[in-house]
Amino acid sequence: MKKLAFLLIASAAATLSAPAMAQFAKPEDAIKYRQSTMFVMQQNFARVAGMSAGRVPFDAKIAAESAEVAAYMAKLPWAAFGEGTDKGTTKAKAEIWSDKAKFNDYAEKMQGEMNKLNAAAKTGNLDSIKAAVGAVGGSCKTCHDAFRS
Amino acid sequence: MKKLAFLLIASAAATLSAPAMAQFAKPEDAIKYRQSTMFVMQQNFARVAGMSAGRVPFDAKIAAESAEVAAYMAKLPWAAFGEGTDKGTTKAKAEIWSDKAKFNDYAEKMQGEMNKLNAAAKTGNLDSIKAAVGAVGGSCKTCHDAFRS
Repeated sequence: MKKLAFLLIASAAATLSAPAMAQFAKPEDAIKYRQSTMFVMQQNFARVAGMSAGRVPFDAKIAAESAEVAAYMAKLPWAAFGEGTDKGTTKAKAEIWSDKAKFNDYAEKMQGEMNKLNAAAKTGNLDSIKAAVGAVGGSCKTCHDAFRS
Repeated sequence: MKKLAFLLIASAAATLSAPAMAQFAKPEDAIKYRQSTMFVMQQNFARVAGMSAGRVPFDAKIAAESAEVAAYMAKLPWAAFGEGTDKGTTKAKAEIWSDKAKFNDYAEKMQGEMNKLNAAAKTGNLDSIKAAVGAVGGSCKTCHDAFRS
């Protein structure tokens, strides 16, 4: 039973950490997909950041739920940056495809910071949340400065 | 330890099943949020449905990953149908707010079918996936027919 439980947990973790291998019908779908996932992530992150900055009253339950969704969403955009999705209604810079290693590194760092925020939000400790919010914000900015026009 | 493990699992399940209490800065944000979450859900569901219909080769891993994301996304749009979000760039009918009980019932049924699809996709059995895809599609249509113009 213990072994089974371990396998189930390991399997769930693997599923959760793997980005969906996105295969899009059209490049426009891929562009809309990454923009949609980032918007949903941003909305949830912004809610926690607003509490962290004292702009809205701190609600530990809402902060935890929002951070959970933001961390989940943080995994999704990357599969939608495939070849041929650099043209269209997008602010994506050509460097995303010419310097993929750096882009992937920044994307992974953001996901790591978002996971830390998720963990912090589960504790309900506002100081921990504030620190994690700052780190997430920094990782967003670093990537946007380099790869978003 | 068993009790702790149970509490941890129960706590995780509660977090996952509760929709984020969305508080949006503007009605347009709420409208964009529900459209974005539904688009991400649809893209993942469509990938599994395409395999189910034989339009694309069946890949059990991709089907499982996509169904997992679709089931997660299925929980998110509903918090963004608050009061005052009925006007703007939206196909949402007024009946969503005048017959909220029915709308919520349809929304819950869809989530239930999507959870069944997620479970079916994890087994890798294509016949089970086909049956679940049909039920999800039916639940989408029922709600769209009643509540989307």
